[in-house]
Parts: sequence; C-alpha cells; structure tokens
Amino acid sequence: MTRQELVAQIRAKKSYLCVGLDTDIQKIPKHLLSANDPIFEFNKQIIDATLPYTVSYKINTAFYEAMGSRGWETLEKTAAYLPKETFRIADAKRGDIGNTTDMYAKAFFENMDFDAVTIAPYMGADSITPFLKYEGKWSIILALTSNNSSADFQLQKLEIGGKELYKKVLETTSTLGSASNTMYVVGATKADELTEIRSIVGEHFLLIPGVGAQGGSLKDVSKLGMNADCGLLINSSRNIIYASSGEDFASAAANVAKEMQAEMGLYL
Amino acid sequence: MTRQELVAQIRAKKSYLCVGLDTDIQKIPKHLLSANDPIFEFNKQIIDATLPYTVSYKINTAFYEAMGSRGWETLEKTAAYLPKETFRIADAKRGDIGNTTDMYAKAFFENMDFDAVTIAPYMGADSITPFLKYEGKWSIILALTSNNSSADFQLQKLEIGGKELYKKVLETTSTLGSASNTMYVVGATKADELTEIRSIVGEHFLLIPGVGAQGGSLKDVSKLGMNADCGLLINSSRNIIYASSGEDFASAAANVAKEMQAEMGLYL
Repeated sequence: MTRQELVAQIRAKKSYLCVGLDTDIQKIPKHLLSANDPIFEFNKQIIDATLPYTVSYKINTAFYEAMGSRGWETLEKTAAYLPKETFRIADAKRGDIGNTTDMYAKAFFENMDFDAVTIAPYMGADSITPFLKYEGKWSIILALTSNNSSADFQLQKLEIGGKELYKKVLETTSTLGSASNTMYVVGATKADELTEIRSIVGEHFLLIPGVGAQGGSLKDVSKLGMNADCGLLINSSRNIIYASSGEDFASAAANVAKEMQAEMGLYL
Repeated sequence: MTRQELVAQIRAKKSYLCVGLDTDIQKIPKHLLSANDPIFEFNKQIIDATLPYTVSYKINTAFYEAMGSRGWETLEKTAAYLPKETFRIADAKRGDIGNTTDMYAKAFFENMDFDAVTIAPYMGADSITPFLKYEGKWSIILALTSNNSSADFQLQKLEIGGKELYKKVLETTSTLGSASNTMYVVGATKADELTEIRSIVGEHFLLIPGVGAQGGSLKDVSKLGMNADCGLLINSSRNIIYASSGEDFASAAANVAKEMQAEMGLYL
C-alpha cells in the first residue's frame, strides 16, 4: 500500500485506528472453541465487526507461533482474510543479517502479502534494507517502546551528541528509506518524547501501541504526534478484541473501536 | 540442558562446534527434491553425519518461516529429530514485551523443547526474563554481531562510562540470569574485542558465528575467547552444510565438521 492510499483511507474513514490481533486461545469466548479453527473464527468476526472504524490490522505473530505449525496456518489464513484496503502489519519484530532478513521478507511480503513488518534495529541496516527492496511495502522500526525496560538501552545517552540511542536509531535508519516506506514504533506511554521525535522524523508515520491496556492517552499522543498527513496509526489490541468474553464479543469490540474512531474524528 | 551437561559433552567429544541448519531449498542437492519433505531429509542426513563431531545444532528459523506453515512443520520435525545430548538452539532473534515474550517461550521451549533461543535485546529485560523462568533452558542474547552494520548501534559509545552499547548490554543483561542460563552472541569477525568481552562476562558461554563464510578465524577466537569451561560454541553453517552440492553432501559436511573438530581438539 502506498502512502497516498493509506492517507486516503484515513481521510475517508476519519480514523487512524489499528486493531491488534494478539489472539490468545485462553482468552477467546468459550463458544468458539468447538470451531474448526477457533482463533481464525474469532479473528474473522473481529475483522468484520471493526472494519468500518479501522484503517489497519496488526497481527502479533508470537501468539500464532505459540500454537505451532497449526498456528502458522491460522496466521496465513488471517493474513489472507484481512481486507486489502486496510494497512496489514505483521508485528514480528524481526532483525538479522542480510541473507536471513531476505528470508523474513519472503515470509511476510511474498508468501503472506503483508503491507508492513515490524523490525528490531539492534543489528543495524542489514536488518532493514532487504525489506526496503519491496515496492509498496513498509518497514516499521522499533524506536521507543512502551514497556518499562525500554529504559535499559533505548534511553541510554550516547557520547557523541548526548542523545538517547532511540534518537540515533531514528536518525540512522530514516536515511535508509523514506517517509513512504518506513515508519517507527513509539509507545503511547512516551507522549512527552513525541515532540522531540517529531523534530527528527517529522514526515514519517508512527505506529503507536500502548493506548489503553498499557496506559497511554489517545488525546495526548494525537495532539503531540500528528502531522499534515495524520502520520499516526494508533494500535489497540486487548481493549478492543477482549471487550467482552461472551457471545457478543464482536459487537462489543466494534463498540470500543467506534468510540475510538469517534474520538479520532475530533482530532483529525 | 544444564551447563554441567554441556561442558561434559564438550570434553567427551573434544568439540565445541555448533552446526547451523540454515537450510535453503535453493541450495540443497537436486536429488533430494523428490523427497516428501526435502529440507527435513537434508537436515536428517546432515545431523546423522555430523553428530560425532558436534555438540550443538542451531536452526535459523527464518529459513523455515520463508516456506510458510509447511516450513514451520519442517522446523518442528527437525527440532524433534535433534539428538537430546546436543545443545539445541532456535536462532530466532526474538524480543518483545513480557506477555509476548511468554508466547515465544511457549513456542520454542514448551512446544519444541529447544535448549536455547537467541534474543534481540533492544527492548530490554522484558525480552529476556520470561525465557529465564524455564529450568535448564538458555537465553542467548545478541551482543556484538558479525555483520558490518553492527557498527550502526552496537558500537556506539555511551555518555556514561564511554563504553560501547554492546558492553552495556553485557553488563545489564548478565545480572538478570547467570552463566548457567545466559549466553552471548559475539561475531567471530570481532576477535579483537573478545578480550574486553571476557573482562565483562568471563564465565558465560559465547555463541560465535562468522567462522568460515563470514571470514573469522577459529584459532583467534579460540585463543582469545576460551575460559576454564571452554565457554565457546563456534557455529558454522554454510561451510559445513553446503560443502558439496552432490549426492555426497552429508559425508562432505561430516569431513568439514571433522576437520573443525580436530582443530578444536588442539585448542581445548
């Protein structure tokens, strides 16, 4: 998906919501457990119900890998079911040397046709450039994450420039591609840093998890993070997909997504 | 596998070789392509042939993911086939927040019973501690990798202490577990840094890829990196598994492994 197409979707739906499919067999409604593939059945109903309010879906691959090769099949089926007009993210946090990164690109961009994959930048450019060869595909690089232990390394200041490591990640990796094929993960619990982040990567889209379950504020991140093209995808996973544990789970999810979309409409 | 058991294997076989199963369908001998599962058939014969000379196998998960859910099945079959007396590594380079890391631990330690998984430390302790809960299982954390772009971030010096980021990774993460459940990835192309690394993590095992195809010297890394318990696992992938592209691929692989083992015998 091109940047233009993504922005058009955001304008049309008045939404920059990304629904996270961190689907856990332990947490889905009991009545689905008799289905042939309960996780897929759950995802399908969540997707159908939330589609009017969201422009993106993010699949956390760990939850599928934890189910073995059957889980990987469910991942493939879910990826294929995601509507093409949405921005489809494999949240896989991959990162390796070049010849291995090529294999990850094959897995997520060729076999499964995701629009984007999340990337851990510890090993540097080799973990990113192989993904950038794919026209219309995106690299979403971890910058400043929402967890407490992001302070362990991401917030360490460097000797040269006295800036935090995550800012060096933004500076170095933003020269590899462009704002039309690279995004950054920035935790919503880090709203204070958004102004500084925008001074480094003003035009890039930011994928922001951590609104809701992890405590971030939609208003704060929208006010501080938005750019002329919106430039934000705000992810919510658990708050939406587990809004109800009963037979009404899909409509309950749609209600939460609708509320978030309505609030987003105010900020756009 | 406990540290004691690993060290006993190294002493018994006079080897600290790890064979890397980065198996690529494009590169395996043509006569295997008619097998029901060519990659598994290739791995099986490589494992059988190299077992006398190696104490460890490392599966690069990217090569299996690139084949979709069938590839994940091959990964599971290969993992199950690996002899229990060897140290079995999932080279997956995972790393995420705690609840997601739990899922990765389930995938690699519960479902597939690997002894160890490789971890990207960018997100900090949350990416490591969930793995450390498993008795007898190991976290192998990326420290200083063998690729050129390791310089992008790993070699950046920090303001406090003036030391490179990778040394901060060693210092911070070595306090989370112990030398009996944590190892580090250090590229063989970085032999110069081994002395400094040993001054920070003297007792830990180091997993060292990059000997052979990537240009590192077995002699140099052995001399500089060995500790009282050996403390090294030296990985070779392409040099061993693609030693021949003919029907003799397994015996050719065994010959290369045997040569490396013989050289290791001199250094032990």
